[in-house]
Order: sequence, then structure tokens, then C-alpha cells
Amino acid sequence: MAELTAGEIAELTGGRLVGDATRAIHAVAPLDRAGEGELSFLATPKYARLFATSRAGLTLVTPGLAEAPGPAERVIVADPHDALLALLPRLYAQPARAPGVHPTAQLGRGVTLAPDATVEAYAVIGEGVHLGPRSWVGTQVVIGAGVAIGADVRLFPHVTLYSGTTLGDRVAIHAGARIGSDGFGYVFADGMHAKMPQVGRCVIEDDVEIGANTTIDRGSVDDTVIGAGTKIDNLVHIAHNVRVGRVCLLMAQVGIAGSTRIEDGCILAGQVGVQGHQTIGAGATIAGQAGVFGNVPAGAKWSGYPARPHVEALRAQAALLKLPKLIRGLERLLDGKPANEEIASPAPRSRNDTPPDA
Amino acid sequence: MAELTAGEIAELTGGRLVGDATRAIHAVAPLDRAGEGELSFLATPKYARLFATSRAGLTLVTPGLAEAPGPAERVIVADPHDALLALLPRLYAQPARAPGVHPTAQLGRGVTLAPDATVEAYAVIGEGVHLGPRSWVGTQVVIGAGVAIGADVRLFPHVTLYSGTTLGDRVAIHAGARIGSDGFGYVFADGMHAKMPQVGRCVIEDDVEIGANTTIDRGSVDDTVIGAGTKIDNLVHIAHNVRVGRVCLLMAQVGIAGSTRIEDGCILAGQVGVQGHQTIGAGATIAGQAGVFGNVPAGAKWSGYPARPHVEALRAQAALLKLPKLIRGLERLLDGKPANEEIASPAPRSRNDTPPDA
Amino acid sequence: MAELTAGEIAELTGGRLVGDATRAIHAVAPLDRAGEGELSFLATPKYARLFATSRAGLTLVTPGLAEAPGPAERVIVADPHDALLALLPRLYAQPARAPGVHPTAQLGRGVTLAPDATVEAYAVIGEGVHLGPRSWVGTQVVIGAGVAIGADVRLFPHVTLYSGTTLGDRVAIHAGARIGSDGFGYVFADGMHAKMPQVGRCVIEDDVEIGANTTIDRGSVDDTVIGAGTKIDNLVHIAHNVRVGRVCLLMAQVGIAGSTRIEDGCILAGQVGVQGHQTIGAGATIAGQAGVFGNVPAGAKWSGYPARPHVEALRAQAALLKLPKLIRGLERLLDGKPANEEIASPAPRSRNDTPPDA
Repeated sequence: MAELTAGEIAELTGGRLVGDATRAIHAVAPLDRAGEGELSFLATPKYARLFATSRAGLTLVTPGLAEAPGPAERVIVADPHDALLALLPRLYAQPARAPGVHPTAQLGRGVTLAPDATVEAYAVIGEGVHLGPRSWVGTQVVIGAGVAIGADVRLFPHVTLYSGTTLGDRVAIHAGARIGSDGFGYVFADGMHAKMPQVGRCVIEDDVEIGANTTIDRGSVDDTVIGAGTKIDNLVHIAHNVRVGRVCLLMAQVGIAGSTRIEDGCILAGQVGVQGHQTIGAGATIAGQAGVFGNVPAGAKWSGYPARPHVEALRAQAALLKLPKLIRGLERLLDGKPANEEIASPAPRSRNDTPPDA
Repeated sequence: MAELTAGEIAELTGGRLVGDATRAIHAVAPLDRAGEGELSFLATPKYARLFATSRAGLTLVTPGLAEAPGPAERVIVADPHDALLALLPRLYAQPARAPGVHPTAQLGRGVTLAPDATVEAYAVIGEGVHLGPRSWVGTQVVIGAGVAIGADVRLFPHVTLYSGTTLGDRVAIHAGARIGSDGFGYVFADGMHAKMPQVGRCVIEDDVEIGANTTIDRGSVDDTVIGAGTKIDNLVHIAHNVRVGRVCLLMAQVGIAGSTRIEDGCILAGQVGVQGHQTIGAGATIAGQAGVFGNVPAGAKWSGYPARPHVEALRAQAALLKLPKLIRGLERLLDGKPANEEIASPAPRSRNDTPPDA
Repeated sequence: MAELTAGEIAELTGGRLVGDATRAIHAVAPLDRAGEGELSFLATPKYARLFATSRAGLTLVTPGLAEAPGPAERVIVADPHDALLALLPRLYAQPARAPGVHPTAQLGRGVTLAPDATVEAYAVIGEGVHLGPRSWVGTQVVIGAGVAIGADVRLFPHVTLYSGTTLGDRVAIHAGARIGSDGFGYVFADGMHAKMPQVGRCVIEDDVEIGANTTIDRGSVDDTVIGAGTKIDNLVHIAHNVRVGRVCLLMAQVGIAGSTRIEDGCILAGQVGVQGHQTIGAGATIAGQAGVFGNVPAGAKWSGYPARPHVEALRAQAALLKLPKLIRGLERLLDGKPANEEIASPAPRSRNDTPPDA
């Protein structure tokens, strides 16, 4: 088991140690569960109460919480999450990858594998596939003919890559994701929906991570493209011909309809839907469950259904909550009668006046 | 084929038989399809019309519908659904499970199996996995190293359990569900999203059922926990560090963002989304498609987007529908002009005034 | 590689050729990527700018755009998309299917296969399954006991068909779809949710296409039915006892709760949710992300949450956006004060304009 001393932890995180530099730490745990040999962290005053009674052997704390009551042994760091990012790979070994092809794997004609690639049990790789250095094809993955895969790619179990798919370097795809499946394209004629053959590509650029059971369709004639560094959560749907830019975050259950463009650096929170043929400008942020039926300007923050600028959506929501108490008075007024005092009393406050941020 | 007499059915359900006690029943079917040897049921007056013309050999009816026109042979029971629950396992045999490990299954080093467990074709079980008595690992299931599985667990085909997952007793997981996948955790630095290693556990307690293609992420550092007796439908997403209490119902396509708590006995209807770091109090009910961006009190019924108490949401919706006709009059009033009679006429009724219940 | 001349393209599409009839075309590509030997298309003035600088060897254009500036070689057709439908199968060969059963496939007792069917590697087919002529069972597909499959069916990799499923002719099911899984049916008693056995069938009629990772539950006692010619996109959920009519389109992430009827020819856009026990009348169209909590009349266009007639929903939304500016004036009026000029000034900023973060 990996182990770090408190002194090493302070050094690795650039933090200031309070306490015994030789104390041994072998794991990370939340405040309420951490024990003697474990490291925990306190990033917000919200959890100060848990810290007060924690039994953690060492805690990463922000400068503002450096004096918070709790276990004496601590490392003061600017950002405990950043600090964890430096420590976790040291304490938790990456899963071992044994290069080589499992004897039950099926490889089609003309498959080219880097000699240090890994192909696990029951994986089935189609004709002409190329697999780059140190790439790791998990158990029961199915890869269609002609797919090209870069270096250091990891495919978790049960992933399907359809023909027409290309993966860059350092791509990670979680269990059950379907990449390059047929887009939803039909032409209605003679009382039926005739299938439009889907012949475009599905291009996943470098450093993309894709969540479990997510689906990304290939292009119809054009390509579907996921830009470098973009991270996609579980159960997301991306339709044909969509272009997602670089370094975006698409959270769980987001759905993007056909031919829409998501420019660089956008953040779409969970369950957001975007209509087809729209453009979300660079750096835009869309709040959870919003329904986007138009273009969104670069840098904008939008929410609501239908989505609009977040400030405007909040204002409309606030007004809506005041409305029922006002409306009876209004009806009286419009009938030419005076509003009575009951009606003029202030509307009750909602118990939930939190704005819908994601 | 299993068979029950009408007399046995009355006895098993504690009902009162009207008709021939020796009549043989071998299946259950809906009113419009049931035939001579089949049992049907009538639980609400809504379907009395179908009952009137039904050819069912026997029908379970509520006391209130005991005299409804229809086939003479009937069993009067307090709740036909409860009665069915007692009968279905008698009429429909459970699928046969043959204990043993299929020769194509791959077992890693140190796997411990109860001698009466079942492992089907092409299942792949990682190092050190423990599988409890009478557990049933379906075709092509993949189980990561170190996973612990209790007694009487059933994993349907194509399930993936990542390392770090623990299943209690009598857990059932449907095809394609992904349990313990990496949470969506990144730290933005130097223009990219750096992955925060996900090292927490995913703990599924006793008597949990999980639907097809649902995804439940492991904790980041803390654990993700699904409480005993909770039932989760298809295509649900549960993010890292979420705690779902006991005996909850999470319907299809629900999404729960990171670190949220769902307390015991909650019901979340289909497509509900809950923001991260919130708490849904015990026994709360959230209507379909609601978007929850705050804490919900115990026992409350909420709906809407953003979600708020259901009664308040209904009132706001009703007011909103009246608004367009009023607003022109208001604009006139605010301009100092009198509202005319057209504006003072009653707002039209919505064709859809059904409340959004679950 | 397949190839067509410009003259053949004009003839196949019934179009009028402008340019050299002997020009060879071997692929289709979007305007901005098409080169010398490639066909592109221009269906709307929106993309006329791309056409102007395109290097496509031949372009399908509508009569209205016949004179648009761009490459000279073109075929004028009434509808470029219809024309593509005629051409794509000629230019892109269908993937080759080799009849026969892969030696690693596992077939249960009593399986009957048409002699020209295909079963790929590691597919597992349960007892008594029937597979019709030219049907194609993809890699690692799992088929439960007793399933009946028609002619010319294609199952992509990783599909699961539970027992109780029936597929008509020419059905296509994409990777990871789960058909006939247990419905979400429980009876609450003694403080727990007791599972109601799910024993109905899941009937998929002719010419249905089902997207990747979609889930369709079997009936509880009744059947779940998907009508002939209906097309279902990715990540859709269809609950037990739902009846979807003929020639419908259900787009990505739609969710239909139990026992709901979707009549013939309906279109449900992405992320639509429909409550249980409702009826969507024939030919109705539901806008993206709408939440349907009641019956929808035949032929209607509905949107919103809760959904209502689209025109009414639009009117309410428009009114809502006007509301904040009016509301302070209204409050003054109801207090018996005249609305003053202050009311015409912009509404105050929300106290909480926090961006919608993740």
C-alpha cells in the first residue's frame, strides 16, 4: 500500500504543515469517516462542524479555516481540491495494465496493434482497426471495422465503437458508451419514414473523457466532432453532425440535437437540452435542465425553459410567484372595482427562493 | 404449466369467490385479452366498460365493483393489485437457475464463490471478488477486482460493476447498468480540466433493484450509497457521493447531481433532476420532470421548474395561463387608460388543467 | 469503391444536370469539405455562402437556388434530401454480412435459425429462440429464452432481448438497447416495496428502428407494443404496458411512463416526458423537453411544462417576460396609488445574479 508522511504531503502541495512531519498517511477519507492514518480536507465553513469532531490523522485546510476547531494536525493550502489532485495519484495506484492480447479476444484481418497495447478478454476488434501505443481495450469491448485509436486510450468494458469512429490520444470511454452509432435521420415518403443512410464520421479528439452509457452518433454526411479536452458525463446524447468545441463540460443526461455547435469552453449542466441547428457561443454556461431553442451568445449565462439570459429568467420566475395573489385583484380592477385590502397584502414568500443554478 | 383453481385463488387472496370453485386458471391477462383459462382484474371504474365485454375466466374485483356487469365468475378482494402479487409467483415460475460456473466464464485469482452460485457464459470476474450464496451472474457481466456481492443477488446480462462496488443481499441489477463508474470530477487549471481521481466506494444495500442502463458513480473520496429497499428505474443517473436513503422510488431518467442526499422514503417521478449538494427530506415526493435547485422539506410534495411546493406551483401555473388576456388591459391601465370590456372577460380555460402528479 | 457519373446521378434523382455528364462521383460530403470527386447538396439559402466557395465536384440544388453563385456543375432537384436517399445506397455499400454462426456463439436447446441467418462472435441465444431469414445477431448480443425474431432483423452489438420479446421483420436495434426488461412495478406493504412480477410481453412490430442504449420494458400483465414503422432514437425509456402506434418518431431521451398510449404518426421531440395512463392522439406533435401530464388531442401541437397547446404556451411565455416590468406598477395600483414614471424604468437587478455553475 502506498504511504506518504505529513511532511511529504506538505511539500507535494506547497502547503504549511502544523504538526508532526513523520505522521504516516495511507488513504484519503471524508471528515466524518477518516481515521488515524487517513487524510481529510476542509474547504468550506459549511463542513466546519464535521471537522470539529473528526478523527482524521491529517487535514488539508484553507488559510481562512486554519484556526478552525478540530484535529491539530493540518496542512494549510490555498485550495484543498487542487492539493488532493496532487496527492491522490500518489496514494492510489493506477490499476495495473498487462500489455498483450487475451487469448479469447477476436481480431479481424489487418488489425494493427502497438506492441505494448492491451486487449482484454472477449474483446472483438474489426478488420483494419489500428490501436496506438499503451492503449487499453477493456473486456467485451466491440470495435467496428476501420476504427483508428490513438495512444494511451482507455476503453472500459462493454464499450461499442461503430465503424467510422476515430479516437485521438489519451481518450477515456466508460462502460457501455456507444460511439458512432447511426444518427436519427429519416425522410417521410409514402406514409413511412425511410432511413437516410448515415455515412459520416465520429471524431473524438485528444484528452476527451466520455461517461458510462453515453451515446454519440456518427455524422449523416458531415462529421460529428468532440473537441480536445472536453469531458462528457454519463447518459449524455449527442446527435449526428454536432460539433462540440474544446475544453467543454457536458454533464449527465444532456441532450444535443443534430447539427448544433457548442463552441469552446462551454459548460452545460445536467439534463440540459439543446435544439438542432443552434450555436452555443464560446464560454457560455447553461443551467441544469434548461431547454435551449435558439442561439446563445458567447460568454452568456442562460437558464430556464425555454432558456433565456439567467438574470431575465430569475426576474420572470420571481414575478410569476407574486402573480396568483395579484391576479384576483387585477381582475377586480379590470372590472372597474377597487382592489380590497386582502388582495393588496404582500404575496407570501416561497420557501424555495434559491435561484436555479446548476 | 402452473395452474390454480378459482377456489385456490380465493383462498390465496383472502377473497370471496362468486362462481365455480373448480374452474382452472393458468395465466393472467388484461380484461380485453383474457380468455377462458385466464384471470383478469378490475380495480377502477375506468375499465368497467372493458369488463362488461371481457371473456376472462375469472376476474379479481374490488368490493365497490362487485356487482359491475361482466363475466359472472369473480373473486371480490380489497385490492386486486395486492391479490395479483400473491398469485403471479404461483402461476409464473421463476426462471430456472442452474448453479455452477459456465466453462467460458473467466475468473481472476482469489475469486471466492459460494458453491451454489451461478456464473453464466462469458462473464468475467476480477481478482478477489466474493460472490455470495445463490447469487446469479448473468451472461457477459463484467465485475471489477475486489467487488463484494451478497446472497441471492441477480445480475442480468451486460451489467458492469467497477472496482470499489459492494452489493448487499437480494440486490437485482438489470441489463446494462453501470455501477461504480468514475464520477465527473475535474479541476480546471492551465486551460484544461484535470481529472480528479475517483477513489470512493459505491455501496448498494440489501433489497435494492436497479433498472436497465442506469449509471451509479462511485464516490470521489467519500462513498455513494443506495439505501436498503430502494428501487431505481431505467436510465437513471446518480452522481458521486450521493446518498439515497431506504425504501425510495427513483423513476426512469431521474438525475441526481453530486453529494446530494435523498432521505428515506422519497419518491422522485420520471426525469426529475436534483442539483448537487441539496437534501430532499424524508418522505418527500417530487413530480415528474421537476428541477430541484434547493433543499426540500421532509414530507413535502414539490413540482415545477424550478421546483417549489406543488400547491404553489399549480397556483402560479394557473395564474400564468390567465396572464396573456390580462396583460394588454394592464398595459392600458398603467398608461392611465381604462381597461375595456374585451379585456375584462374571463380568461379561457386551459385544455390541460390536470395537475402534474407523479 | 462504388462510383456514379453526373449523368447517372441526374437520372437516378430525376434531376436536371448542368455540366459534364461523364464526371465521376464516388462519395458525398458537406459543402465545405467536398472535393473534386464528391457530391454535395444545397437545400436552403442559409448555406449559400458555403456553396459560393465550395470545391464540390457536383452539387444537388433546389430549383430556387439553381442560379446561386458556386461551382458550375450541379443537378437541380425538387428536394436534395430525397435525392440523397436515392444515391447514398449506391455510393456506400451496406456492410457485408456473412451468413453462419460464429464458433464462439452459444445456442440454447431448441434454437431454430433460418439457414442464411448470421450470428456473430460471443452472441448467446437462449432456449427455443427462433431467428428468421437473413437476420443478423451482432457480437455479444444476448437473447432470452423463447424470443421470436422475424426476417431481415439486425441486432447491433451488446443488445439484450429479455424473454417475452417478439420482433417483427426488418427491425433494427442499436448497440446496448435493452428490450423487454422488467417494468417498474411494486406494491408498498409492510414498509417495503414488494416487486410485482412482470410477466407481459414486449412486441416490436415490423420496420421499427431502436436507438443505442434505449430501454423498452415488457408489459406487467398486458403487453408493451411498438407499432410498425415507428423509429426510436437513443436513450429513450418506454415503460411497461405502453402502446406506441405506427409510424411515430420518438427522439432522444424521451420518457413514456406506464400504460400510456401514443397513437399513430405522433412526433415526440427530444427529452419529452409523458405521464402514465395518458393518450397522445394520432398525429400529435410534442415540442422538445415538454412535460405531458394529460391527454393530447389528435393532430395537436403541444409544448411547455406542464404541456399545453403550443400557441397558448407561447402566449404565456411572452406574457411572463413582460411581467417583471409591470408588476411593481401593479403593486402600487393595488395599493390605491397611481402608477408613476418609476414603473417605466427598468426592473431592479436580482439580488442573486450568481452564474449558474455546476
